Amino acid sequence: MNYEKFFNEQLLALKDDGNYREFSELERLRGRFPSAKCYNGPSEVTIWCSNDYLGMGQHPSVLQAMHETLDSTGAGAGGTRNISGTTHAHSILEAELADLHGKENALLFTSGYVSNWAALSTLAAKIPDCVVLTDQLNHASMIEGIRHSRATKIIWKHNDLDDLETKLASLPSSVPKLIAFESVYSMDGDIAPIAEICDLADKYNAMTYLDEVHAVGLYGPRGGGIAEREGLMNRLTVIEGTLGKAFGVMGGYIAASAALCDFVRSFASGFIFTTALPPAVAAGATAAIQHLKASALERSEHQVRVKQVRDALDTIGLPHISNPSHIIPVVVGNPVKCKYISDVLLKEYGIYIQPINYPTVPKGTERLRITPSPLHTADDVERLVSALEDLWMQCDLMRTSVAAQ
Amino acid sequence: MNYEKFFNEQLLALKDDGNYREFSELERLRGRFPSAKCYNGPSEVTIWCSNDYLGMGQHPSVLQAMHETLDSTGAGAGGTRNISGTTHAHSILEAELADLHGKENALLFTSGYVSNWAALSTLAAKIPDCVVLTDQLNHASMIEGIRHSRATKIIWKHNDLDDLETKLASLPSSVPKLIAFESVYSMDGDIAPIAEICDLADKYNAMTYLDEVHAVGLYGPRGGGIAEREGLMNRLTVIEGTLGKAFGVMGGYIAASAALCDFVRSFASGFIFTTALPPAVAAGATAAIQHLKASALERSEHQVRVKQVRDALDTIGLPHISNPSHIIPVVVGNPVKCKYISDVLLKEYGIYIQPINYPTVPKGTERLRITPSPLHTADDVERLVSALEDLWMQCDLMRTSVAAQ
Repeated sequence: MNYEKFFNEQLLALKDDGNYREFSELERLRGRFPSAKCYNGPSEVTIWCSNDYLGMGQHPSVLQAMHETLDSTGAGAGGTRNISGTTHAHSILEAELADLHGKENALLFTSGYVSNWAALSTLAAKIPDCVVLTDQLNHASMIEGIRHSRATKIIWKHNDLDDLETKLASLPSSVPKLIAFESVYSMDGDIAPIAEICDLADKYNAMTYLDEVHAVGLYGPRGGGIAEREGLMNRLTVIEGTLGKAFGVMGGYIAASAALCDFVRSFASGFIFTTALPPAVAAGATAAIQHLKASALERSEHQVRVKQVRDALDTIGLPHISNPSHIIPVVVGNPVKCKYISDVLLKEYGIYIQPINYPTVPKGTERLRITPSPLHTADDVERLVSALEDLWMQCDLMRTSVAAQ
Repeated sequence: MNYEKFFNEQLLALKDDGNYREFSELERLRGRFPSAKCYNGPSEVTIWCSNDYLGMGQHPSVLQAMHETLDSTGAGAGGTRNISGTTHAHSILEAELADLHGKENALLFTSGYVSNWAALSTLAAKIPDCVVLTDQLNHASMIEGIRHSRATKIIWKHNDLDDLETKLASLPSSVPKLIAFESVYSMDGDIAPIAEICDLADKYNAMTYLDEVHAVGLYGPRGGGIAEREGLMNRLTVIEGTLGKAFGVMGGYIAASAALCDFVRSFASGFIFTTALPPAVAAGATAAIQHLKASALERSEHQVRVKQVRDALDTIGLPHISNPSHIIPVVVGNPVKCKYISDVLLKEYGIYIQPINYPTVPKGTERLRITPSPLHTADDVERLVSALEDLWMQCDLMRTSVAAQ
């Protein structure tokens, strides 16, 4: 076995398929987001694909909290949560998250990925004979957590209530069941029928596990997510979220009953055996959550900007997936063309939108995933749409019939 | 199935066994480390169990780098490494890590746990028919990564070269093999025979994967770990390390050939689908690594303090596990007594040492794990040893014969 040869062959195959990823190296310019300095393109670019959806990573309150905590307590936590790594900043953040979701408690993880992986694998592995019913399009972190548990897994068709009910009904009533799904699906931007899924969960005595990572901070009167907006938080067993997208920092969490949180806290390897988040990161996240609980301005401006981009795309007949969220997927359908468009956007137009290829989306659905923020200006929108129009013509890509103007 | 009842029963069983964990809530006082404000004990305590081994989490260079990066680029990375989350700070840190370990490249993860889990699961799953030979006492993150790969796993006796060779020899020569082990084992503080393991790897054409999380920053002329100290870095296929212990911040990494790093970068779910480390965290880690590459002062003072504590324990006949590292395990051997001693140390002596119970260590080997730092004073050592002496008498615990004084 020649290991190096094997790695190189595998990488070559990725490149031949057009699925090799090249990272754009950026340096965001605080106070000028969505602008960033670029190290592999023009000197300054406009970011149109960030998950810092509201620009909270630049918010003065967030930065102030992080500076202050660095000054008062230092850089890292210095240990796992159990061994010297639980700081006052972690406790405050967990209380804030429990309050955000109207749950008894919350539990922090080092990332959203780890929260899904650790919580799902622990629940599914430790509840005897647990069967996990998982939406077909769930995120990689959920898939890997369920896989790791080695529990029986049943995949139900994406957002399909009939299919979910058929599968629930096929199981003995005594079997523990866990329904795992997301509110906003990040690549298509569609939203799950949460109320109806909760109805089925009640009917079949199943637990529900809702991933709200693309919704927390963005929806609901206090930024609690889609479940808050729809008045459903109390019907969900577990709400999982992230501190790394709309809250602008890093980390993940679950919010649930005190007993469930304590159970995961006590048994999840991915929680127990890892250094805690730096206190300054926790403090920054707390500041972001507190701000977005009180202020709806960022959320409403976000929705306005999303509508402006959609309308502008419609005006020139550029096809995008229709959905009720803030995510605007423009499907190219070919990895090589998708990467080409992204490269030209960066180099010639100073617009950065990373191509989304397999395995993040299925082959044949490669896309540009546009994420407007309240900090993009009308001029930014105009430049984006004009550039896309040029490239769509150049690449001879399909357009929808242009609306009467 | 009553889910809440199940969780509560499981928690009660943990409590009955004395294995329920209660977190101490601290707030470290920058500039006064190892002192911390305590929220569930006396107002101020001395931490004796931190993995911020050198106090780098308090170092002015680290904090300055973090402040500056917060000011220049903001809080979070805003995306995965592939989708807008690769910043200049990440690239600089990866180059610094590759240089630290004399490797072509390095790859960052959000934690040491994730680096082990993601790198091992990807290598073992993606290399066809790979067999993983794993040391019996490897860390949970390595165990879970190997488990997740579903590759064939062979456990060899802890640090036992004969057993490793027997197991290597039992495999066909054509089978890809990966030997996974640690340099410093965190709970006993013993050190692996790295050179001899590399000899066996060469003989049987196996890859080597060395976890140096409790050694990077602490050993070797530039803080590259035990492998650097022993001149062995070039013989290892993968060196894995953390930014959350001696480097004082957060995050994990592997350093290896360019092809191997690119392979893991391209295929590891736990790398691809997660928000990148905040740029300020990356910048803080870079500052810590750069400082410890140039300065051996912290490492030598660390070793002096470790020896002082060991000598003081020997003087009063307090049994501790002998080892060649900086970790001083004082075995109590009973979870309830271990927790009791820890509680009294905190409440009556203002000394914080978290009890280490199952599953972190095997049942019956519950311990106090003492980690001296260069910032502990001679007076701190005196107070620690005197308190332990009181409690050893009070609990009627075994002592070694006291050396002639």
